[in-house]
Amino acid sequence: MTDYSTNMRLKLPVVCIILEVILIILFGVLVEYNDHTDAKNWKKNNTNINDMENEFYYRYPSFQDVHVMIFIGFGFLMTFLQRYGFSSVGFNFLIAAFSLQWATLMQGFFHGMHHGKIHVGVESMINADFCTGSVLISFGAVLGKTSPVQMLIMAIFEVTLFAVNEFILLSLLDARDAGGSMTIHTFGAYFGLMVTRVLYRPALNKSKHKNCSVYHSDLFAMIGTIYLWMFWPSFNSAITSLGDDQHRTALNTYYSLASCTLATYGFSALVNHEGKLDMVHIQNAALAGGVAVGTAGEMMLTPFGSMIVGFLAGTISVLGYKYLTPVLESKLKIQDTCGVHNLHGMPGVLGAIVGAVTAAVASSSTYGNGLEDVFPKINQDFTASNQAVMQIVSLAVTLGMALIGGLIVGFILKLPIYGAPPDTLCFEDSIYWEMPGEEGGHEELTTVKSADETEKLNS
Amino acid sequence: MTDYSTNMRLKLPVVCIILEVILIILFGVLVEYNDHTDAKNWKKNNTNINDMENEFYYRYPSFQDVHVMIFIGFGFLMTFLQRYGFSSVGFNFLIAAFSLQWATLMQGFFHGMHHGKIHVGVESMINADFCTGSVLISFGAVLGKTSPVQMLIMAIFEVTLFAVNEFILLSLLDARDAGGSMTIHTFGAYFGLMVTRVLYRPALNKSKHKNCSVYHSDLFAMIGTIYLWMFWPSFNSAITSLGDDQHRTALNTYYSLASCTLATYGFSALVNHEGKLDMVHIQNAALAGGVAVGTAGEMMLTPFGSMIVGFLAGTISVLGYKYLTPVLESKLKIQDTCGVHNLHGMPGVLGAIVGAVTAAVASSSTYGNGLEDVFPKINQDFTASNQAVMQIVSLAVTLGMALIGGLIVGFILKLPIYGAPPDTLCFEDSIYWEMPGEEGGHEELTTVKSADETEKLNS
Amino acid sequence: MTDYSTNMRLKLPVVCIILEVILIILFGVLVEYNDHTDAKNWKKNNTNINDMENEFYYRYPSFQDVHVMIFIGFGFLMTFLQRYGFSSVGFNFLIAAFSLQWATLMQGFFHGMHHGKIHVGVESMINADFCTGSVLISFGAVLGKTSPVQMLIMAIFEVTLFAVNEFILLSLLDARDAGGSMTIHTFGAYFGLMVTRVLYRPALNKSKHKNCSVYHSDLFAMIGTIYLWMFWPSFNSAITSLGDDQHRTALNTYYSLASCTLATYGFSALVNHEGKLDMVHIQNAALAGGVAVGTAGEMMLTPFGSMIVGFLAGTISVLGYKYLTPVLESKLKIQDTCGVHNLHGMPGVLGAIVGAVTAAVASSSTYGNGLEDVFPKINQDFTASNQAVMQIVSLAVTLGMALIGGLIVGFILKLPIYGAPPDTLCFEDSIYWEMPGEEGGHEELTTVKSADETEKLNS
Repeated sequence: MTDYSTNMRLKLPVVCIILEVILIILFGVLVEYNDHTDAKNWKKNNTNINDMENEFYYRYPSFQDVHVMIFIGFGFLMTFLQRYGFSSVGFNFLIAAFSLQWATLMQGFFHGMHHGKIHVGVESMINADFCTGSVLISFGAVLGKTSPVQMLIMAIFEVTLFAVNEFILLSLLDARDAGGSMTIHTFGAYFGLMVTRVLYRPALNKSKHKNCSVYHSDLFAMIGTIYLWMFWPSFNSAITSLGDDQHRTALNTYYSLASCTLATYGFSALVNHEGKLDMVHIQNAALAGGVAVGTAGEMMLTPFGSMIVGFLAGTISVLGYKYLTPVLESKLKIQDTCGVHNLHGMPGVLGAIVGAVTAAVASSSTYGNGLEDVFPKINQDFTASNQAVMQIVSLAVTLGMALIGGLIVGFILKLPIYGAPPDTLCFEDSIYWEMPGEEGGHEELTTVKSADETEKLNS
Repeated sequence: MTDYSTNMRLKLPVVCIILEVILIILFGVLVEYNDHTDAKNWKKNNTNINDMENEFYYRYPSFQDVHVMIFIGFGFLMTFLQRYGFSSVGFNFLIAAFSLQWATLMQGFFHGMHHGKIHVGVESMINADFCTGSVLISFGAVLGKTSPVQMLIMAIFEVTLFAVNEFILLSLLDARDAGGSMTIHTFGAYFGLMVTRVLYRPALNKSKHKNCSVYHSDLFAMIGTIYLWMFWPSFNSAITSLGDDQHRTALNTYYSLASCTLATYGFSALVNHEGKLDMVHIQNAALAGGVAVGTAGEMMLTPFGSMIVGFLAGTISVLGYKYLTPVLESKLKIQDTCGVHNLHGMPGVLGAIVGAVTAAVASSSTYGNGLEDVFPKINQDFTASNQAVMQIVSLAVTLGMALIGGLIVGFILKLPIYGAPPDTLCFEDSIYWEMPGEEGGHEELTTVKSADETEKLNS
Repeated sequence: MTDYSTNMRLKLPVVCIILEVILIILFGVLVEYNDHTDAKNWKKNNTNINDMENEFYYRYPSFQDVHVMIFIGFGFLMTFLQRYGFSSVGFNFLIAAFSLQWATLMQGFFHGMHHGKIHVGVESMINADFCTGSVLISFGAVLGKTSPVQMLIMAIFEVTLFAVNEFILLSLLDARDAGGSMTIHTFGAYFGLMVTRVLYRPALNKSKHKNCSVYHSDLFAMIGTIYLWMFWPSFNSAITSLGDDQHRTALNTYYSLASCTLATYGFSALVNHEGKLDMVHIQNAALAGGVAVGTAGEMMLTPFGSMIVGFLAGTISVLGYKYLTPVLESKLKIQDTCGVHNLHGMPGVLGAIVGAVTAAVASSSTYGNGLEDVFPKINQDFTASNQAVMQIVSLAVTLGMALIGGLIVGFILKLPIYGAPPDTLCFEDSIYWEMPGEEGGHEELTTVKSADETEKLNS
């Protein structure tokens, strides 16, 4: 069932082991504990320091929720394909484990070195997971059509570009984007869409019968959906300022998602001829509300505002799945396996715009002394309007970086050396995985069918 | 496979979208950030306020555990049915997303408005999830026999009645019920049982072959069970007073559940002719220990007392599934799909009684200065015995509210306008969901069977 | 399908109920709330005590993560077997619910009584879950070949020996082992391996066709794997000193696991003739990095050191599955169902050695004022080298206790009174569980096959 080109016997070990050895060497040279994790520095100035004030206790629960979203959320969300569950969870796992290490270095480099060293702690862990999320969004666009080696190569470049883009937005443009509507979702989606465009397969319909779900695979995917949905308030609030900011962000996200869910169910039934709900919408569009408050969530968006944004996000996401995805495929040759344009692309752009608008109306009368936590740059010389402009410029920069980056990386990934699957074997685990035996389950079905066929031939 | 009456094309969108629009408007008019989420008010009086003392850090981890119970726990617990997994997880998701918004308004209204506004923060989020839990318990009683529109209508009324009952218990009667043995479990169970009684279907056995589990569906259900079991200590302690109270409640619940689990396994094997364990018992009765310490968990119940209560709860729950459920169905015409009477009904009543008894023996010698955290009303004029009486009165009120409320709402839901499934298509996803294609999985089995049958006909 | 010997009708109820009643009585006599959970003692000396400083807030989130690892992580990891999912999750649940209660007593006894009482709180909950983890590791070695009664008997003895061994290591030898490389993993693995050696079944290949996975069972197992992987940082850090220690341990474990994962994927593809990944490796070896930093994680291992350890752990674990497990079975007659030697045994020993080496190089220049948090015993009379020697002695003691304990307990479990399955019915749920009906799922497959066979006989 495999031919030489998809054989990973040498390719995958070489890439995994070389990358990890490089990572280990770079960590040895460049990485140090930060002051909250180093035994010496934590008590350097004050031996009576209150251990309960260590940043760990105020960030780690959020980190673990984000971690679950990255590994269970994204991993299981993509198991909806009937014969690609091992690869969905398994490659998600591999790519994420690599990306979070590489992101620690890239983000550490751009976020500012300390005497030539990168400092790590729970905040760097969250940031690394965030960057990983962006790579996994792109993975969703090309799901089923790429080899694990291709995905690791993509991750090397995408993590690097992510860090550059994040640096431009947050450090040069002073944009606010705590939950990553722009840096994570918009960037990951349009990068992935461009990659899948470059990797366009005209004969992909040869695997068409595998590019769909079965009953149990849809239930596995719902595990991913629900975890993403539940923990999104933690995602958006994980690196905001402590106190009311973190609290408010979680609250806004909670309401946005709840509102988005009702919109999703409503429109999913409406656009179906028989009024039946579509699992693709429920699994994906119901999450768009989290994406769309990624920028404005920490601001004084109010529950009211959050719910409006969530409602819009769910609506455009369902409509996107129904009407836009087929057009993107037929007209623009964008084969977007998971529909990341509908879940991350359009809601990400919506989130960026909502963030700009919300920033534009920020004022001391609304934020009081809390203004500087949310908008540290706003003062007499730099008005709320300036902030809004920076938010919009950031969106444009992100789109540009993602599209150009995806274009270049797409061509790199097109080289016929990574063991990508042939058109006939896309969306199929068995080319990269040792498959379980024939007793029971899906495999037996095949056997049963073959037996039936044999019977027919014999009779 | 669907006829006009179950077509959701217009019904579901209209209900979802209208409800969400109403919610958004009401939130716009009525809801404000509380002092821990509002940028201005958090630092109003003190710009040097310690952000680490924001309530978020002491409630949010509990909230997330409760959130997992509501969406993963309840959602997957109900996937045990072989062909109702989409609806179990999916309608659970829809109902919960609606109910938590509506509950925010209803509870906010009864818990006390602030200058005409409802204040929201992590505590209101927990309370809204609690109320949602009650609705999901009722959903368990009618599972498989109702349309999503019916369930949304039920949620509107049940959330409202829940808030009224909660107000009577906690504010008028000064009852204590941190984990909701009465307000959540007893109320949700008896409300749902009455609704399913009113919706009695004499010909339900036409769908009998679908009202059971298959191997994998039971494993999915175990995901729900285990999550509920693990996080129940967080559920019962989520809104108790901070400090020792929250700590003690979690500990008591942990021991009650452990003890309950051994009782469940013991009695499950004992009541089976071949000594085999029954998945229905393991999935449900093992959780009764959490329900039964919902009231007394925050009190000085001691691990010893908690374990006795857990043991009793597991025992009556298994015996209920084995001996009482068939009687309820045949004699009282109560078709209780998930057996909520055994998991939430009887253990809830047990929990209420345990709470009354534990309150009756409360004294300063046991609680010291902590007495007022647990029983703020107890003083020279209002003795522990008075508290116990209030607890029992609260149980009676709850039962009355649930039964009368369920009766009325049952009749409302009986109107033939909500697209409820016909008797032959209960416990069946395909009337409300677009089903995945025929390749692999369950669907293929049907095909295989049909093929076999065709063969027989041909020969 | 069952004969008398495997009928649990009396055996299981008697054991469960008697054990629980004994536990309840012992808890009644011996167990008290500790100062952080007792209403009176918490506010005894200071009515203005800050409730936010209750230990609950600094340990409970870690506890819940550990709890998820024990019940979901271990439980689902073992569902990889095609027809043993009910038993894997279900017996895991039963054994764990018993062990955590029994461990509270045994550990409480050895950790020091308070005026004849055992004090409980969130730390005792974590410790009890840790001890339970050790029993579940041993369960993995004998999975599929034992009855639930056997496992409860094993748990009684193993928990006791665990507590003795832990007492020797931590209290007598002053060893450090926060994440339990020795106390939990090495002990549990070698204990279980010895038990399975004593219970050797020469004719186990009669059940060979059931001792393997199917497609969906491997996906269920991945739920267990990913949860263990994500929450291992919480496991290793759950009972370290507060502050930088806990923060650093989580960080080290995070990097060790990430590095281990890349090594696992690389070597899994390398050792396969077609370069295909093996689910057994991914499900298990990717976790070895967490085991291997269980001792040194709280020390100043640095991310660099952690990644090297993780890489080595993943490598030896994959090679163990590929080359050592078959030898252990054929030469040493050790039938290790889950390969716990590769996941917990060798990586546990590696972790103990890494811990000794890291302790040997500890110095004030590296740890500063934090030295005494990590190594309370190190001073002028007790050098870092002494500490290292104690670590190695501890490893030897652990191996000795595990092997001798496992030998004795193995012979106790060999008595033909516990209803162990016959060789032909190992790895089979149906002897201990009421199986779901014939519609759909796996059962139907059997029916289909039988029908085919009938047809052949008739023709």
